[in-house]
Amino acid sequence: MTGPQFKQLRRAYGFDEVAIVPGDVTINPELVELGLEIGPHRFAIPFVASAMDAVVDPNFAIEMHRAGGLAVLNLEGVWTRYDDPGTILQEVAAASRDEATAILQNAYQAPIRDDLIARRIKEIKAGGAVAAVSTTPMNTKKMAGLVQDSGADILVVQSTVTTARHESTSLEGLRFEKLFKDIHIPVVVGNTVGFNATLEVMRTGVAGVLVGVGPGAACTSREVLGIGVPQVTATIDCAAARDHHFRETGRYVPIITDGGIRTGGDVCKCIVSGADAVMMGSPFAQTTEAPGRGYHWGMATPHANLPRGTRVAVGVNTTVQKLLYGPTSRTDGTENLVGALKTAMGMCGAHNVREFQQAEMVIAPAIKTEGKIYQFAQSGS
Amino acid sequence: MTGPQFKQLRRAYGFDEVAIVPGDVTINPELVELGLEIGPHRFAIPFVASAMDAVVDPNFAIEMHRAGGLAVLNLEGVWTRYDDPGTILQEVAAASRDEATAILQNAYQAPIRDDLIARRIKEIKAGGAVAAVSTTPMNTKKMAGLVQDSGADILVVQSTVTTARHESTSLEGLRFEKLFKDIHIPVVVGNTVGFNATLEVMRTGVAGVLVGVGPGAACTSREVLGIGVPQVTATIDCAAARDHHFRETGRYVPIITDGGIRTGGDVCKCIVSGADAVMMGSPFAQTTEAPGRGYHWGMATPHANLPRGTRVAVGVNTTVQKLLYGPTSRTDGTENLVGALKTAMGMCGAHNVREFQQAEMVIAPAIKTEGKIYQFAQSGS
Amino acid sequence: MTGPQFKQLRRAYGFDEVAIVPGDVTINPELVELGLEIGPHRFAIPFVASAMDAVVDPNFAIEMHRAGGLAVLNLEGVWTRYDDPGTILQEVAAASRDEATAILQNAYQAPIRDDLIARRIKEIKAGGAVAAVSTTPMNTKKMAGLVQDSGADILVVQSTVTTARHESTSLEGLRFEKLFKDIHIPVVVGNTVGFNATLEVMRTGVAGVLVGVGPGAACTSREVLGIGVPQVTATIDCAAARDHHFRETGRYVPIITDGGIRTGGDVCKCIVSGADAVMMGSPFAQTTEAPGRGYHWGMATPHANLPRGTRVAVGVNTTVQKLLYGPTSRTDGTENLVGALKTAMGMCGAHNVREFQQAEMVIAPAIKTEGKIYQFAQSGS
Amino acid sequence: MTGPQFKQLRRAYGFDEVAIVPGDVTINPELVELGLEIGPHRFAIPFVASAMDAVVDPNFAIEMHRAGGLAVLNLEGVWTRYDDPGTILQEVAAASRDEATAILQNAYQAPIRDDLIARRIKEIKAGGAVAAVSTTPMNTKKMAGLVQDSGADILVVQSTVTTARHESTSLEGLRFEKLFKDIHIPVVVGNTVGFNATLEVMRTGVAGVLVGVGPGAACTSREVLGIGVPQVTATIDCAAARDHHFRETGRYVPIITDGGIRTGGDVCKCIVSGADAVMMGSPFAQTTEAPGRGYHWGMATPHANLPRGTRVAVGVNTTVQKLLYGPTSRTDGTENLVGALKTAMGMCGAHNVREFQQAEMVIAPAIKTEGKIYQFAQSGS
Repeated sequence: MTGPQFKQLRRAYGFDEVAIVPGDVTINPELVELGLEIGPHRFAIPFVASAMDAVVDPNFAIEMHRAGGLAVLNLEGVWTRYDDPGTILQEVAAASRDEATAILQNAYQAPIRDDLIARRIKEIKAGGAVAAVSTTPMNTKKMAGLVQDSGADILVVQSTVTTARHESTSLEGLRFEKLFKDIHIPVVVGNTVGFNATLEVMRTGVAGVLVGVGPGAACTSREVLGIGVPQVTATIDCAAARDHHFRETGRYVPIITDGGIRTGGDVCKCIVSGADAVMMGSPFAQTTEAPGRGYHWGMATPHANLPRGTRVAVGVNTTVQKLLYGPTSRTDGTENLVGALKTAMGMCGAHNVREFQQAEMVIAPAIKTEGKIYQFAQSGS
Repeated sequence: MTGPQFKQLRRAYGFDEVAIVPGDVTINPELVELGLEIGPHRFAIPFVASAMDAVVDPNFAIEMHRAGGLAVLNLEGVWTRYDDPGTILQEVAAASRDEATAILQNAYQAPIRDDLIARRIKEIKAGGAVAAVSTTPMNTKKMAGLVQDSGADILVVQSTVTTARHESTSLEGLRFEKLFKDIHIPVVVGNTVGFNATLEVMRTGVAGVLVGVGPGAACTSREVLGIGVPQVTATIDCAAARDHHFRETGRYVPIITDGGIRTGGDVCKCIVSGADAVMMGSPFAQTTEAPGRGYHWGMATPHANLPRGTRVAVGVNTTVQKLLYGPTSRTDGTENLVGALKTAMGMCGAHNVREFQQAEMVIAPAIKTEGKIYQFAQSGS
Repeated sequence: MTGPQFKQLRRAYGFDEVAIVPGDVTINPELVELGLEIGPHRFAIPFVASAMDAVVDPNFAIEMHRAGGLAVLNLEGVWTRYDDPGTILQEVAAASRDEATAILQNAYQAPIRDDLIARRIKEIKAGGAVAAVSTTPMNTKKMAGLVQDSGADILVVQSTVTTARHESTSLEGLRFEKLFKDIHIPVVVGNTVGFNATLEVMRTGVAGVLVGVGPGAACTSREVLGIGVPQVTATIDCAAARDHHFRETGRYVPIITDGGIRTGGDVCKCIVSGADAVMMGSPFAQTTEAPGRGYHWGMATPHANLPRGTRVAVGVNTTVQKLLYGPTSRTDGTENLVGALKTAMGMCGAHNVREFQQAEMVIAPAIKTEGKIYQFAQSGS
Repeated sequence: MTGPQFKQLRRAYGFDEVAIVPGDVTINPELVELGLEIGPHRFAIPFVASAMDAVVDPNFAIEMHRAGGLAVLNLEGVWTRYDDPGTILQEVAAASRDEATAILQNAYQAPIRDDLIARRIKEIKAGGAVAAVSTTPMNTKKMAGLVQDSGADILVVQSTVTTARHESTSLEGLRFEKLFKDIHIPVVVGNTVGFNATLEVMRTGVAGVLVGVGPGAACTSREVLGIGVPQVTATIDCAAARDHHFRETGRYVPIITDGGIRTGGDVCKCIVSGADAVMMGSPFAQTTEAPGRGYHWGMATPHANLPRGTRVAVGVNTTVQKLLYGPTSRTDGTENLVGALKTAMGMCGAHNVREFQQAEMVIAPAIKTEGKIYQFAQSGS
């Protein structure tokens, strides 16, 4: 007879609960190198724009490429359901807060068209950019051939939670090992959290993994499902899987932290947690180049029966260039994210992303109440 | 001479402090099975409506049965004190916030009538539903025979804290072992928290245990008495008792977490903490089927000398059907609770409640301050 | 060469961070016994009113005695500086918030009069009450003889922090061992926190110890000095000292937790932390019997150079009788504190204070944000 | 094959999360001694005013000297760029909150003039004060000779993070060992956090170390860069380095905690964490002697591309004398900081700063929500 067995809970941490410790050596920011590699593609900066309809359209993808980063186009959103989604986007932006979800649910009832899939990919390629496009696991088998044939460079297979082993009622669920017999462009898969789940996905041969379940500004999975892992811990766990997989196989599969990143400080904390890059929605949705007219929403928001996200009003208040490279007069960390990353790396003596992943981080909750009291004192003109 | 002895305190956790981690395997929600068994009765979904006067009347019990769940009628409330409690319920709903407690204290001075006990049970049975009714331990010996003879299917013996060993001034306190010589319908007992207290109750032969002291929305036991255990820890401890009892005896006694559950996320966290089912008051009080006219209150609120609960205004804004099954456009987790539970189970690869109890959960406090800052940004039309 | 030595910090807990766990046995509240002994004096309930000018005057002391508890009169406040402090109390109550501290600083410049010390003690005795009066350590040698000769029953020697070993520039600092050669009435000393400091005070022969530095509602020691220990930990540590001292000497010296207690829940948590009684200011200041006209302040507030407390507006909204014994329609724990204590003890199966000290307590932070969200929902008429 | 390696995070603490425990012995405050030594200079009190343009000008430095402390003049701010910075300071004070950062960025474009460096130092010396002046590491080699020749007594080399080993593109980065061949006045270096970084700086021969990255009221490094260590932990770690270095070399290098200190309580917590002195900006900016006209800002605020601080409105509401020595009617700890320090040391039985460093401190989060609820109750008249 064994004694009582109590379930054990591990503590997990998010951005607002940690802070980076400066290094014993410092270096000038101009000595810092930021490159990211996904399969054969190399990007100057480790910033990826989310596959969200209000963030990335073909034009945005081209702008993001020019800025040195990568944008992913959602192949199951309004850009492949409508010739010109402008009317829909305007309707969403004009909706009252109470109507917004219902309008989104309705807009996503229109069918996805193969011709628009091909057209959007070609529009991105015509702009000279790396064409990265996303599908959900459910539609990947059906769409992957068309995506590859249309000239896409990177396929992103993304849902709230994606695993290497999915059970469905149909006998023909998605198996990545099978997919890779037909599809020869790099495939990035997500989202995952957890050491085992990430390791299993990596072993199927993916070119990258998106990390994060629950923390995005437009996501309400924690309220609706109770599911979610704060990003610092999620990234630490998945980085451990990446390093373990590298030691096992010699193959380095980058991980991209996705969700909840708003400031330069958040970006830096992702990398120090072990990320190779960051994927962001909200910040890019605020640029003049984004199609969302100052709003954005997660891809689980239009779900017909159980929406798990909200339309978020973010405003239009910056450009891709200023967001990434400044200069800025903002002091809250919401512009010049690349400059912030280089400065922080300099303070930690990190020459590149791999070295910055080794920096020390402490648990140091932001005392927000304190901040509010102080902000009150500051409010005089 | 021994050294100084300091009292030790264990950390306990509530819903807002934890989050569920997705599994290494995922399954389609349609593969998920949700059944609950209490004695010989089987329910399609593990949802139980609280024995609160503003939540359950005979009609509500019938509706809940049709929806696949179970509702418990309070035999010591207005439904057994008044032929037609409509006037009383209207008076409570119309009272100002300051008067409400005093009006409730007064309303519960009317005597409990045996004829109404029998009538209410028969009304539920006439609707084809499983008739579950509740008494307090103090009145159980007196009422149990009548309850059984009137055709009730399940007896719930419930007070804020119920133990297998209660000392009172009378020589004839309730002893469950004795009760079970006369009463042969399944008896569910609560509320308990703690491994030992739950194990002792299970060993008396009960058919189920209600878990939770202090956390309900209409309960102020923590302010008044300082007593209460957050629901995640309470459920973990009692689930350990259930599993220990099962290993000892081979008899599986389901535990039902009761109190403080408001969203699909909360429901999921109960099950992952080890619950077999959830009991809810506030969410059901908001349905058109509930008798409370948009208000509800705990059964300790009418206490004449030391009320330990408040009348809570919840509004009338959904139906039993929508609350449980959707569809919904709400994104805050307050509708389609069954859909949320199935979706979350799918993300954790759980085919049934017993498997979902094994999912991983982390301590991950909700950063509410953060949320509020963001909500402000969202407030634009 | 030893390695680096980092200062270690221990976690301390306050009322809002803990909750009491019900017991494995429950008993009826009428079986609960609440007596407190200080020296030869026995009190029906373990409630002591603070030696604060807005709380205790001779009349209040008499009322408190009738109610079964004890009140302490401050011998260095307005009651021994003015024949009729009514004018002063009225001035304090009428002052704007900004002026209040300066008015208090001024009011306490008047000299303490020996004739008033004697008169106040005699007034209390004339009412048939136990006369407990307080002095600061600095004035104790000078006043103690007069206090004893005037017929006082209990002397309380109290300052923010009192130790058995105090160094001062004068060669004749207070030594309790010396004091006890001349003074033969029971002496209660405070305030202390910490195992060692409390043990040392107990070894001098005191009849009771007041526990708590920093947590009172009218106290700002934490802001001004950085000094303070949350009450749950302070009480646990001092209770360990009491028990250690008892094992050493066979002499049981009760400890009285003083500061920050507002609700029945707080009272219960003090006892479960190990206290033998509670001392309260704010709650008693709200009674019609208190002289403060709805305000009160700590005895460090009038300090001429470095005030460490504020005048707090509490209102007049109850009586000593209702505060202690109810009945009440309040559901927030601020009335019927004795009823709450008995009910909680019943739920923990405790027959008396000593047994209740053994109850289990968990760390369970109050989620206030959550509470506020809900309160908003409740605000409808 | 090793198992998975997860990054470990250590918990760090700030002022609002700790409280000081009174001692087993208490002493009268007049027995307390507060002296601070930096190189050959001795100061009566361990208070240093920050090298911020809105805080210290030559006149302020002279006043601070008279008050027994030390002020540091920033040699790269407006005082060395403008003959009369009055116009600029007025412009900053008059700016709207949105314009302030841009105006500061512009104001700091004017070149630093050697003649003004010399003049400011001579102005301080003419007032009879110890002349302490600051440069950034980047400009130190260029300026140090002039500083010494102009008669400065102490050179402070300060940037957000300063290490003994800095890599830059130029071959001639600052090396402190080299600097000390030419510069023979004491050099204080900062800021550092962390045991190793501080130890390395101490081993170069500096006369003092400034401790703290991120916590200042005018600093937003945590938002922008994610970098920062709460001050209690930062000070504990650096104090451990100081003590280690002392055991290694017999040389005692004082550490000065810099950033986020607002109250007497904060000052005391710095010392108990191990500091020898405190450096403050915000509190001194509020004095009539400060040049900032009720505003102040960090020296990273004017950064052209990536400002990491804000202009903070603090008001003008005290004097250097009252701030340090009182008397005061404020009860929030913002005046009479020396009095508060002496009182707290008395309560901990500490005769001097070195003894106070040994006091016990507990982790005791300030329950702000609680405080706010109470403040509401206090708001009457």
